[in-house]
Amino acid sequence: MKKLINDPEAVTTEAVEGFVLAHPDLVTQLDQLVVARVGGAVRGKVGLVSGGGSGHEPLHAGFVGVGMLDAAVPGAMFTSPTPDPIVAATRAADGGAGVLHIVKNYTGDVLNFETAAELADAEDIEVATVIVNDDVAVEDSLYTAGRRGVAGTVLVEKIAGAAAERGDDLAGVLAIAQRVNAGVRSMGVALSACTVPHAGKPSFELAENEIEIGIGIHGEPGRRRIPMASADEITDLLLDPVVEDLGLASGEHVLLLVNGMGGTPASELSIVYRHARRRLEEQGVVVDRSLVGNYVTSLEMQGASVTVLRLDDELTALYDAPVSTAALRWGL
Amino acid sequence: MKKLINDPEAVTTEAVEGFVLAHPDLVTQLDQLVVARVGGAVRGKVGLVSGGGSGHEPLHAGFVGVGMLDAAVPGAMFTSPTPDPIVAATRAADGGAGVLHIVKNYTGDVLNFETAAELADAEDIEVATVIVNDDVAVEDSLYTAGRRGVAGTVLVEKIAGAAAERGDDLAGVLAIAQRVNAGVRSMGVALSACTVPHAGKPSFELAENEIEIGIGIHGEPGRRRIPMASADEITDLLLDPVVEDLGLASGEHVLLLVNGMGGTPASELSIVYRHARRRLEEQGVVVDRSLVGNYVTSLEMQGASVTVLRLDDELTALYDAPVSTAALRWGL
Repeated sequence: MKKLINDPEAVTTEAVEGFVLAHPDLVTQLDQLVVARVGGAVRGKVGLVSGGGSGHEPLHAGFVGVGMLDAAVPGAMFTSPTPDPIVAATRAADGGAGVLHIVKNYTGDVLNFETAAELADAEDIEVATVIVNDDVAVEDSLYTAGRRGVAGTVLVEKIAGAAAERGDDLAGVLAIAQRVNAGVRSMGVALSACTVPHAGKPSFELAENEIEIGIGIHGEPGRRRIPMASADEITDLLLDPVVEDLGLASGEHVLLLVNGMGGTPASELSIVYRHARRRLEEQGVVVDRSLVGNYVTSLEMQGASVTVLRLDDELTALYDAPVSTAALRWGL
Repeated sequence: MKKLINDPEAVTTEAVEGFVLAHPDLVTQLDQLVVARVGGAVRGKVGLVSGGGSGHEPLHAGFVGVGMLDAAVPGAMFTSPTPDPIVAATRAADGGAGVLHIVKNYTGDVLNFETAAELADAEDIEVATVIVNDDVAVEDSLYTAGRRGVAGTVLVEKIAGAAAERGDDLAGVLAIAQRVNAGVRSMGVALSACTVPHAGKPSFELAENEIEIGIGIHGEPGRRRIPMASADEITDLLLDPVVEDLGLASGEHVLLLVNGMGGTPASELSIVYRHARRRLEEQGVVVDRSLVGNYVTSLEMQGASVTVLRLDDELTALYDAPVSTAALRWGL
């Protein structure tokens, strides 16, 4: 294992420390492993908190800032954070209008955020929760009952963040988050596995000429392994189930997100995007907004995922609203 | 070789096509393989053109937009573009105030940009050229006489782009670009090699426990190969020669850029940043601005580079000026 790390057990704490040092205008670190928006909670604004195992950077700390999250809770590598730091983040994000927890659908995350919500409630902080489950690859999986939450999480965070910023109340922000989750689907592919530092070896094995379609962001098994194919063929295998599950019809407007798993050259993401966009357009679907890059990664895994979000005028406007975070920034 | 590509010979053209499709608000593609700022040249503004072999994305097309480049010329993978598309880009960038060519110091690039400048001159477009050579690792190298141009190029493009945007004339923009190049130094490390698609095999071999200090962005040999070490030790090996070559003194202000080579997890870049920043601060150097991410890559190579730019008030203000490109965006 060759990695730019010191102690395998200290990767998360050192990485968070470095991240916060690099972005003093955006974030600050609380006592616990919590990254919060600089300046503290915004009075009267619904607070947004997300978190989960580390190793998926820039998710979630990279999305803390104006227009997105108020606080993020990075767990250990690929491991849910415990309730304590989630409560601390919830407290930090609370401006008196309640807090939305954005939780990817993994058993540990769901459980720990649930406990944290109860603890916050005991402190008179109102918490609502949206569970993100956009991955169409499999029902149930390692660590998950139902569908997994993957790259669609970024869009929930962006759009719900904009709703909070414009002054929606907690029920309103929750409704927007749920609408995004209801309209977003993803599927991914792995060309190679990643190595969790404290494990020291790849989390699964792929043969020389083999790829895995429907991979999870922790290397959980996907739909099937197939021989290496062309980018266009692979893109079809990812996009088609997404489009089908969404029930997309000609004339609909969407956001297309091509997400890199961490070890994929930008040029390859552009090639996947190119084909996915063309295929959507051939079906009469209008690609109104696009995002191409590393947003929800799996350490240095090579691969990509394709995400489609059904847009309407309101969601488009919220997506376009100004945002200033380490990983997404425009209009500010 | 597992890559998300179709035809190995078509990687660059397909990737550029996808890139342009994804960013219609920022860029457009000319007839040739040229990516230009949408809306065309800005009347009276000095135009900025850069280019070079592909495989280093987001460099250069990812930096086309307001406040940075007016046009970029992606060559074939790791191969300089020929003079023709450089001339086309120069023409597209010319708003009547002349054009600055920003050229990384590789023999092919220098030669082809020189020829293009002569051809542009024959069309009465005034061209000035800055050669970027920030890599302190080696004097002379494969493809290079003198020092190589690497991640510092992004800072030349950003800061010179801001100078052009505020209305400096060609001599003024050139002087700013030269000042940035004079004050910026970089050095990189490879943990793994990358594979150029049409070559089909890794461009060099590293043993299981071996890394290369001072690597070039095309995998050119660096200073030496050493056994794998800790992130902090490796960071010292990159930062110390940079600081020494710059002659940095206590009390000076700098920008610190930790650049990923393409296949490095974000968490590892944060760990490198953390140590580099601390070490600079121990020496009394003030880190005023920071940039951490994949900016000048080498396909899927695992590794990173450390870049330090000496700042003064003017360069800091120009760096802070609004920019709107695919890979760097703030204030707009």
